[in-house]
Amino acid sequence: MSGERLIYLPLGGAGEIGMNAYVYGYGAPDKERLILVDLGVAFPDMDTTPGVDLIMPDIAWLRERLDRLEAVFITHAHEDHVGAVAHYAETLGKPIHARSFTANIARRKFDDLGLPDDRVHTVGAWPEQVQAGPFRVGFVPISHSVPESAGLVIDTPAGRVIHSGDFKLDPDPIVGEAFDETLWAEVSKGGVKALICDSTNVFVDRPGRSESDLGPAITELIANASGLVAATTFASNVARVKTLAMAGEKAGRSIVLLGRAMRRMIEAAVETGVLTDFPRTVSPEEAQDIPRQSLMLLTTGSQGERRAATAQLSRGKYLGLEMKAGDLFLFSSKTIPGNERDVIRIINAFSEMGVDVVDDSSGRYHVSGHANRPDLERLHDIVRPQIVVPMHGEHRHLREHAKLAETRGYQGIVAVNGMIIDLTGNAPSVAGYVETGRTYLDGSVQVGALDGVVRDRIRMALNGHVVVTVILDEADEALGEPWCEIMGLPETGVSRAPLVEVLEEDLNQFLMRAEARTLRDDDRLEEALRRIVRQTAQTEIGKKPEVSVVISRLR
Amino acid sequence: MSGERLIYLPLGGAGEIGMNAYVYGYGAPDKERLILVDLGVAFPDMDTTPGVDLIMPDIAWLRERLDRLEAVFITHAHEDHVGAVAHYAETLGKPIHARSFTANIARRKFDDLGLPDDRVHTVGAWPEQVQAGPFRVGFVPISHSVPESAGLVIDTPAGRVIHSGDFKLDPDPIVGEAFDETLWAEVSKGGVKALICDSTNVFVDRPGRSESDLGPAITELIANASGLVAATTFASNVARVKTLAMAGEKAGRSIVLLGRAMRRMIEAAVETGVLTDFPRTVSPEEAQDIPRQSLMLLTTGSQGERRAATAQLSRGKYLGLEMKAGDLFLFSSKTIPGNERDVIRIINAFSEMGVDVVDDSSGRYHVSGHANRPDLERLHDIVRPQIVVPMHGEHRHLREHAKLAETRGYQGIVAVNGMIIDLTGNAPSVAGYVETGRTYLDGSVQVGALDGVVRDRIRMALNGHVVVTVILDEADEALGEPWCEIMGLPETGVSRAPLVEVLEEDLNQFLMRAEARTLRDDDRLEEALRRIVRQTAQTEIGKKPEVSVVISRLR
Repeated sequence: MSGERLIYLPLGGAGEIGMNAYVYGYGAPDKERLILVDLGVAFPDMDTTPGVDLIMPDIAWLRERLDRLEAVFITHAHEDHVGAVAHYAETLGKPIHARSFTANIARRKFDDLGLPDDRVHTVGAWPEQVQAGPFRVGFVPISHSVPESAGLVIDTPAGRVIHSGDFKLDPDPIVGEAFDETLWAEVSKGGVKALICDSTNVFVDRPGRSESDLGPAITELIANASGLVAATTFASNVARVKTLAMAGEKAGRSIVLLGRAMRRMIEAAVETGVLTDFPRTVSPEEAQDIPRQSLMLLTTGSQGERRAATAQLSRGKYLGLEMKAGDLFLFSSKTIPGNERDVIRIINAFSEMGVDVVDDSSGRYHVSGHANRPDLERLHDIVRPQIVVPMHGEHRHLREHAKLAETRGYQGIVAVNGMIIDLTGNAPSVAGYVETGRTYLDGSVQVGALDGVVRDRIRMALNGHVVVTVILDEADEALGEPWCEIMGLPETGVSRAPLVEVLEEDLNQFLMRAEARTLRDDDRLEEALRRIVRQTAQTEIGKKPEVSVVISRLR
Repeated sequence: MSGERLIYLPLGGAGEIGMNAYVYGYGAPDKERLILVDLGVAFPDMDTTPGVDLIMPDIAWLRERLDRLEAVFITHAHEDHVGAVAHYAETLGKPIHARSFTANIARRKFDDLGLPDDRVHTVGAWPEQVQAGPFRVGFVPISHSVPESAGLVIDTPAGRVIHSGDFKLDPDPIVGEAFDETLWAEVSKGGVKALICDSTNVFVDRPGRSESDLGPAITELIANASGLVAATTFASNVARVKTLAMAGEKAGRSIVLLGRAMRRMIEAAVETGVLTDFPRTVSPEEAQDIPRQSLMLLTTGSQGERRAATAQLSRGKYLGLEMKAGDLFLFSSKTIPGNERDVIRIINAFSEMGVDVVDDSSGRYHVSGHANRPDLERLHDIVRPQIVVPMHGEHRHLREHAKLAETRGYQGIVAVNGMIIDLTGNAPSVAGYVETGRTYLDGSVQVGALDGVVRDRIRMALNGHVVVTVILDEADEALGEPWCEIMGLPETGVSRAPLVEVLEEDLNQFLMRAEARTLRDDDRLEEALRRIVRQTAQTEIGKKPEVSVVISRLR
């Protein structure tokens, strides 16, 4: 092996759930040839990322080593795996390989940005393999909550690595391939150096359930409904959408797809042949002429997203359709931690309308797309790798998964974003650390998480904003009085006088007495004015606002 | 009854969980004498109330009818029931009645604000009663997750009403009174007009469990721990704190109370005699000299609050104490929806330290303080009221609880904040609507929810803030060029030039060409400048910021 090594380096997705991006390298240290597996996004929230549109992994490390990057491989079509490919495509400039459905979804992302999509290459399922430098990569079908999910078999001079992708062990996933234990045993039989493995559900002790378990309960629920029926799930869960639609059709209802993602996903699934026998759908316009008890709406927005179809329906009419007392709304989904408030807001809005809401709390209308703890153990034992490297999880998941592997005789190692793991030898080791982080897509601009832009937004949201304008003449004397503009602050404080007037009065008092050396010096003056605003505001309203100072000198 | 009527009017807590405030009235319409039951707060979040300190019910309706208000009664010491009494005490100016422990906590709130606490009156348990105008009110002990919780028996000329307060049916609550079915049957036997009833857990189908169920599991967990042990729960759950402390003592550990609320609650419980036999505690300073395997920390911040002891420990040293690999941290609590992200952040921080975190997911280390569905049915059947009015719940809870009551032969009515319910006749009816809402405590100022202050903060957080300053001379001509100050926005956009410069250039171009009638008119000029900033920003950075315009005229 003459000093060459096999490395694994997560740039995103290890130590967090979301924005997956995993690098593999092979070669002499710091000269490894590289491939990237997945390039996803995470979603912003008001607490940490107000105003941001998407969160992407910071790929600075990779950008500085583009000459060593061979290709990108995408395991499946979920946003946290494929969401950033188009945004970074020009930066990376490398071929992107995926199976047909995933490639279809990826190409749509290029189209959305007006970029040519010819970098996206469709790869067939195993035994087809793609050569990328020292790597040979094959897509091995595995069941998940999106069609054509794949684990990757990555052959390297240091042995075979298997990257599980997101998966569950589903014998009957309704759409797409069932988990094929024989195939997985087959690809594992020559010995597997490392299994890089989904950790999402490591804390769930019961075996996972099949997508096909839901059909009877959903069918029964909808058969018994008397008014309009609407149901939401992740649009990418094409199997679930199909189960819901079939249940609607069986109950004599016409199916309406509401929301762009819902239409896009079904379209992509039909185009690529993974979805067949989907019931005929009608448009929202056509639905106007159909009695409500003969309609079933399938809507986007299972996580309570405010602009999606579900939230729109909860606020009133949407494309001419409206929920009413006696109707049924089904959340065929799990609420992701952090989205509870938004989902509950919708449930209460429906409750006010008299709509009956059914969610997954009974366990009858949703199953997870990820392998539970016993399923992880089962995959470990099929693959029998030398090393298990947990991925796709927060730190607590990775740690638990590594412990689980160790108790079962595999070497486990916790590898978080930025850790270079050397997989070459008999035991995995940490070979170094690189800086990783997040990049925000904010409007049309990419902003670094540490640039201070979002920090300033959060500060304004917490503290309000005061802008002070002072004009100084040629002799460095104040021309007129200073002005204050406030935003996000109460108009009056304890003195009952307008806050702006109290601030301006105190600032003016200061300016009249200020020393020449202060008035001459922008930094010094700005600091003094800021301090006065914060002190006065503290006295008046009990909080210290953010302060911007504009000093204009007439010269 | 000569046209007199008995009314119920929730001003807070009905249609939401939090900031409970329930009005009862008796008398001629619009001349009813009034009492207020509970006056609590809700807690802000970044999504809807950034920067706000506390959310209180808007009591404008009551403020305009102070001459009719007799008294305030507080059922128990939770913040959502007692949190606003001191803030509104001067406005209301009426006696506040509560049992000993609740009164102790209420008085501390007056002390915190530097207000005299002599308005707070301690009332003994039933059969003691307080006369308040046409009402006679007694406190009937009922078990809950705080000591000395009470239901109120409210006798009126129109009959007896029972206000359940928050409750569970616990035969062995560890601290405070067990649920006494005989007593509740006794107060109900003469016939009860209406039961106004806690709805929190109406969707939980299994019977509630006793606080005493937890002792063995907690004791075993802590007995088996080898490093430092820390545990968090709501400080007001004095019974749980006691169970935890006893388990620690049994394992030979010294107890350290960390966090102000933890010390205050234990102090109040000891002062009022509801807590006895609490293990001796040591201070954080004393703890420095005790080996870590002989310590147990009881910490505030079970909901992930960033400044509380739990979060501080997850970030590193706190008062000289520190968690390390091999230590145990127990969340003896449930995460309230909306707080998941903050709690998970802490769990992951502990995971990174190698601390083992145990939470309530096994069901062994936490029980709810609220009556589950079968317990609600049981209370209904003990009280056998004519009417059930669900309270303390979101709309979905109230609706479900009313349905439950109806199926069991009681009249149920969904009454949300602002609805006046007439309970006088044989069937309850909606007698009117009043405006309700929320008041924010923001720093030291009370701000109306609709004042626009918080709306502006949210807008700045989402969109950033641009301030434009223009100086016009006596002839209404621009003096120099306009200045822009940006906050919460990227420094450069698509043109790669500084955003501020692009904005200033476009504004300057406009000013040079602007008509005199625009330059003369502040409103017109402001609107034009705002539009330019928003258009240019949209082109440059793909988003439209909030814009403040400062026009200074040298006159």
